[in-house]
Parts: sequence; structure tokens; C-alpha cells
Amino acid sequence: MARSRLAQARQRENKSMARKKVYLAGPDVFLPDAVAVGHKKKQLCDEYGFEGLYSLDKDGETQGDPAQIFRANCALMQQADIGLFNLTPFRGPSTDVGTAFEVAFLFAAGKPLYGYTSTTADYLDRVTQAFGPPRHSDGRYLDSSGCSIENCNLYDNLMISRAIADSGGSIVRIDESDTDRVSLAAWKAFQACLELARSQV
Amino acid sequence: MARSRLAQARQRENKSMARKKVYLAGPDVFLPDAVAVGHKKKQLCDEYGFEGLYSLDKDGETQGDPAQIFRANCALMQQADIGLFNLTPFRGPSTDVGTAFEVAFLFAAGKPLYGYTSTTADYLDRVTQAFGPPRHSDGRYLDSSGCSIENCNLYDNLMISRAIADSGGSIVRIDESDTDRVSLAAWKAFQACLELARSQV
Repeated sequence: MARSRLAQARQRENKSMARKKVYLAGPDVFLPDAVAVGHKKKQLCDEYGFEGLYSLDKDGETQGDPAQIFRANCALMQQADIGLFNLTPFRGPSTDVGTAFEVAFLFAAGKPLYGYTSTTADYLDRVTQAFGPPRHSDGRYLDSSGCSIENCNLYDNLMISRAIADSGGSIVRIDESDTDRVSLAAWKAFQACLELARSQV
Repeated sequence: MARSRLAQARQRENKSMARKKVYLAGPDVFLPDAVAVGHKKKQLCDEYGFEGLYSLDKDGETQGDPAQIFRANCALMQQADIGLFNLTPFRGPSTDVGTAFEVAFLFAAGKPLYGYTSTTADYLDRVTQAFGPPRHSDGRYLDSSGCSIENCNLYDNLMISRAIADSGGSIVRIDESDTDRVSLAAWKAFQACLELARSQV
């Protein structure tokens, strides 16, 4: 009996050791139900055989202090084997800048990166939606202030899109817009992304 | 005479070897006069005793291919001793996401980082300007969709602001707004930032 319990404990430990750690990045931390969203995403990670790491898990320790939150996030990223990034546009046509920072941090650490988003539109289309139709000049698209709009058929700024591609991962886009806005949690794309990561990493 | 020329050449070489390389990041690459802006910023780097590295310098080699541009930018950053980031808001209340990526890439490489911007407003003020006054609830500020707005008296998302602070650098803000919009090149803040970097690095 004691031996059997020991064996079970070892089995659990091995299972736990074998689970890859996934850093969950995205503007989810700003949602009204940020803690619940993180909890559910971590549960889904568990169902797919991963361990989810979520910024707000460290909330008790960081006490809302920006310096401590920053360092806690970096420490969490350093533990991660994989990065999963919610790239759904946030307060503008692009990815949240904190999430963009984390893409680079984990890219520099050589980890496989995956993106997911609840909009299927390319960056050029989203800039058009937000600021009106661009001008076309010399093969380039220009916004109303004359600034060029990257038109590489990419999801976002090429530093984000290409880092994810070069890391071996990809970006999963599933349209989850309802009548008034896209879903910021991007649940369908998140699960499809976990499915993809499980098959590749 | 020959010896004197050799001595001069050596002096030039030593001076060149001693110059620290500054990676110039920012949405400047999207400006209508992106090449000229980069040229002038590199000249200013030279005047302050630095060598400026600018993404568009590699334009001839990368041929507009996103994968090549991404790798060329990463290679340029790997050569840099210091990062200088134009954090002036771009297509929304935040820093350009490509620039946010580069903050993290150079932070991960342990380089000193400096930011500069042509607006003095904090992130909370810029979100208010862009999307209207926030609601105040339980000590937090919420936007119209109920998402929380970071209110740490920081310039941008704490991952950006704190990375720069933790690297030993800081963010120089000088108001350069004219009647209709802020200056995206942020010339005054750029020069003040070079001055600061020269005194500290």
C-alpha cells in the first residue's frame, strides 16, 4: 500500500515534470474578469497537457508595484518553455505593447512562440478600419498623415509576425467578432493554438 | 609625413573603435521622409560621439522582404551597445509595437536603454485623450469597455517603462506638439536623450 502510494506520487511528479510551461501573454490582464480569464486559460492549458503561467498569479507578491510586477513577469517568462501570445488588437489596430515586449523577451530566449487572435484581418485592413482608406503611392500604402503602412500580408508589424514564424510557431486567427467588437479573450483561437502547440512542441 | 599619416589613420581608427553603437528604434521608419530622418539622426549621433545604427541602412540588402528585414534588424541590434527608442505614440495611445519588441530584445541582451518622446502626457492621459474620460471604480481606472487602464504614473505599459528604468536608462519627454499633432520624429527629445546617454554610458 505504502509502495503503491509512493509509485503514484512518483507518477504524478513525473507527469508534472514532463509538462511544458506555457507563458500566457496578452491584454487579458486588463479585462474586467482578468483573474477568472487567467484561471480558465490555465485550466485549458492543463487539459492540453501544459502548465500555464499567468502574470496575475504573482499579484499577491507584487502588491501593484510596477517594478515588482515587471520583474515578476520576467521571472515567469524565464521559467517558460513556450510563449502563447494573445495578439488581439488592443486600444488601436495593433497588439498590446506589453505583449509585444514579451514576444521579444521569449524570442531572445530561443523559445517557440505562438500567437492567437479573434480577428482574421491583416494589419493593413485594421489600419484602414481604424483610420479610413489609405492612399496608394509608388506601390506603398500611406495613412492620412503620409506615414507608410506595412503591407506584407502579415498579421501585425513584421517584428512581431516574423519573430513568431522564425521561432518555429505561427499565429492562429479565428473570427470571434460579435455585433459590436471582437472578443478580447479570443477563446476559440486560444484553444486552437493550444491544440497546434501540443502537436508541434 | 608617411608616419604622420599613419598616426592620423590610427587615431581615426581608435576613435571609431571607441565610439559606442546606438541602435535607433522607432516609428521613424514609417515617416514620409524616413531615409532623411534616419540620416539626420545618425549625423546627430556622430556629433555626440556615437555611431548610429538605423534599420533602413540595410534596405538595399533586404529588398523589402519581411523575413530578411526582421533578421537584419536583429543582427543590427546584436551589434549595438545602447538602445535609443522613439516612444512617441503611433496609431494609438501607445508606442509602436515594433519598437516595443526592440526594447525587449535589447533589454534581454543587457544593454542600457533610453526612450524619448515628443509628448509629456502619461499613458492614462493619452488613453483619456483617445477614448474619452475613464470611469473610476475601486481605485482603478476603466475604459468604456470596462478594461482597466494602467495608472502607475508611467509613460507607457509598465513592461516598456520599467525595462528602460531597470536597464539604467530613462525616458526623455519634451512637448513638441504643434497645432494639429505631435512630432513623430521627436527631434528635441532625441537630442536631449543623446546628451543624457553621453553623460551616463
